[in-house]
Amino acid sequence: MSLGQDRARALELDAEDPLAGARELFWPGPEGQVYLDGNSLGMLPRRSGARLRRVVEREWAEGLVGSWEGWIDMPTSVGDRLGRELLGAAPGQVLVADSTTVNLYKLAAAALDARPGRGVVVSDRHNFPTDRYLLEGLARGRGLELRLVEFDEVEGPDPQRVAEVVDGDTALLSLSHVDYRSGALADMMAISEVAHRAGALTLWDLCHSVGAVPIELDRSAADLACGCTYKYLNAGPGSPAFLYVRGELQGQLRQPIWGWFAQLDQFAMGQGYSPRPGVGAFLSGSPNVIGLALVEEGTALLGELGIERIRAKSQALTSFLVELWERHLNPLGFGLASPRDPRRRGSHVTLRHPRAAEVCRRLAGTGVVADFRSPDRLRLGCAAPTTSYSELVVAVGRIAAAVSDRAGGGKAGEAAPGASQRQDGRP
Amino acid sequence: MSLGQDRARALELDAEDPLAGARELFWPGPEGQVYLDGNSLGMLPRRSGARLRRVVEREWAEGLVGSWEGWIDMPTSVGDRLGRELLGAAPGQVLVADSTTVNLYKLAAAALDARPGRGVVVSDRHNFPTDRYLLEGLARGRGLELRLVEFDEVEGPDPQRVAEVVDGDTALLSLSHVDYRSGALADMMAISEVAHRAGALTLWDLCHSVGAVPIELDRSAADLACGCTYKYLNAGPGSPAFLYVRGELQGQLRQPIWGWFAQLDQFAMGQGYSPRPGVGAFLSGSPNVIGLALVEEGTALLGELGIERIRAKSQALTSFLVELWERHLNPLGFGLASPRDPRRRGSHVTLRHPRAAEVCRRLAGTGVVADFRSPDRLRLGCAAPTTSYSELVVAVGRIAAAVSDRAGGGKAGEAAPGASQRQDGRP
Repeated sequence: MSLGQDRARALELDAEDPLAGARELFWPGPEGQVYLDGNSLGMLPRRSGARLRRVVEREWAEGLVGSWEGWIDMPTSVGDRLGRELLGAAPGQVLVADSTTVNLYKLAAAALDARPGRGVVVSDRHNFPTDRYLLEGLARGRGLELRLVEFDEVEGPDPQRVAEVVDGDTALLSLSHVDYRSGALADMMAISEVAHRAGALTLWDLCHSVGAVPIELDRSAADLACGCTYKYLNAGPGSPAFLYVRGELQGQLRQPIWGWFAQLDQFAMGQGYSPRPGVGAFLSGSPNVIGLALVEEGTALLGELGIERIRAKSQALTSFLVELWERHLNPLGFGLASPRDPRRRGSHVTLRHPRAAEVCRRLAGTGVVADFRSPDRLRLGCAAPTTSYSELVVAVGRIAAAVSDRAGGGKAGEAAPGASQRQDGRP
Repeated sequence: MSLGQDRARALELDAEDPLAGARELFWPGPEGQVYLDGNSLGMLPRRSGARLRRVVEREWAEGLVGSWEGWIDMPTSVGDRLGRELLGAAPGQVLVADSTTVNLYKLAAAALDARPGRGVVVSDRHNFPTDRYLLEGLARGRGLELRLVEFDEVEGPDPQRVAEVVDGDTALLSLSHVDYRSGALADMMAISEVAHRAGALTLWDLCHSVGAVPIELDRSAADLACGCTYKYLNAGPGSPAFLYVRGELQGQLRQPIWGWFAQLDQFAMGQGYSPRPGVGAFLSGSPNVIGLALVEEGTALLGELGIERIRAKSQALTSFLVELWERHLNPLGFGLASPRDPRRRGSHVTLRHPRAAEVCRRLAGTGVVADFRSPDRLRLGCAAPTTSYSELVVAVGRIAAAVSDRAGGGKAGEAAPGASQRQDGRP
């Protein structure tokens, strides 16, 4: 099948796409750009632009300090909404606050303190760097061993392998739900159950799954989770992260960053820290109000589009992309570094090629934004609300051109400024 | 002198005020409102509104992930600017990131780890709650004693008393530069030197001084400092905080929240945490880009107005307010809970009255926004760029009316919604 035939097929798929109209709910990017990096930084929803003006020009500029009345509970109220719409979490278990890294710290520290006498923290050698570094720091500070397991690079962590490495000495198992490199989707339920049988707690990083994959935290047996909001949740660069603490564990866990936003009677300003019951005990300092407003809008938008519809389109998009790879890029030396089974993938597809860095740079010059992950990976993100099938055909055509035309004549040679192969808020 | 005569004097002072035009650089609040709570949440600078549209509608919506090229160094570049304009800190020592509470945690933890074998952390029993709670948590986790010293409630910490309570067993002395209740301004230089003689490190909370009082960190002998940006820096609700680590200490201190933004070769995504040299090692997760842009604008604005001019007007405003108190409110049972010497004050004046909560509520109903601090304090913030002398006369007149007219007839009885005596991002 030629690329032209694929283009015709893509037009049919776009015409049938129940989410095709969703792109209109976002600010348009540059004319003609194919944006395949929503897995790094999501696009700006129109409603978020309007909300931002409201929170800044009305609530801040005019309401001033009196607006705290409406702002002060946002970490929990936006958290509850996120829990309901996208995390499968009943109210009272999710907070929106701080960064993913700080939330990982609070959760992992609380978990380790709740499993004294156990000497090992288990994670994935290919986990996202911040997760690994964070656990390394906590393990070192407590004299524990950090066991970084070599899971299959493409398929990611599986329950069988987890059962081999988690035992009665494991305090905490910390994994990503969707692998930032391969896009592999872990079986959260089965893996959490394996860890629980060994008496370990589980902490899941949802950065690459929230907003793209239906998540059922309450049903999954996961204990703790956190993630960011600037990828599929479209809440903007450096927007606040979220955390989840299973209700029945809240009484047993205590996080280490004791701040006045967790204090039971906050405005009494009293002596002695006495945290409020519930997930609010995981708060520390003042909430990022502007960021919270953007998280609320992103969550509401995805809730309205429907996570099941998003997932269905996401799987169709990544499956179509894998087909295109097989026909047009595999022959040019690109390998597939993502699972072939769409049920085992998140919402991005990763290709490997020795010249991936150069290809990514050249793509940017032709208006196709992907990202590069050292040493040889090209990540292509399919954000269901904003990505079309036709765009994938365009991207694959330009990827093929970028490696065929090595000398770099024509458009492919005009490297764009901005070096999108490097910058990434938290991929 | 009657209130009418004071009003005439205030009009003269306003006419002579070199910063009188600065109010035009901010969005107007509600018509006729007297806003004396810039020490809790500063007003919105016009330039910040414009910058916000640029960062959101152009950089995020159009530049998308490629904009990280310009965003990624903002924590250090905005930190350097803040250091130069307002903190007296040479480049390479200030970061803008996270919340004040998280920064206090990183700095205090690093300091305690750098003074092993010392068993005591010293702070002020009247310090802001988050500072006390945070230190309480760190001390408990490490088996240290937290010694909360009873300094003079109005005058705040002084070097003599510090010398009595800090000794060779003190690892860290942590104080606020300006007391959030009394507004007392501590002698950072003299107190830090006392602590150093005992071999302790010093950590200063600058929340209530930055942007209002000239700060000379490099010259002050302070080791560590942090503070927020939503008060006198006008960067908006929940904007990111800052931290300072004296250059010569950076090699000796290691903060506990190891994230990939501190990693030396961040995008290699390599195994093993290896933090970059310098203050960047105190970074953790993704920067709050929108908040950073607002911090940059707030810093630039104050830099242009000039911190010396701001301080001069602030001292004149608070001195005028103390005069007004003496003539009109002292006879009505209000006490002064701030230092009388303007050189020993920050930029707010605190009054005490048994009915302060009710007065604060009534004031809000008449368009005067102050804040209440339990059990009996009324705080009146004088933000030099936005507060006029005439507004202080209006406020004092309404405070007098609020206690004289107990039944609450007329305007004073209409309690405003918003209950500004309670809400406060981080006072």
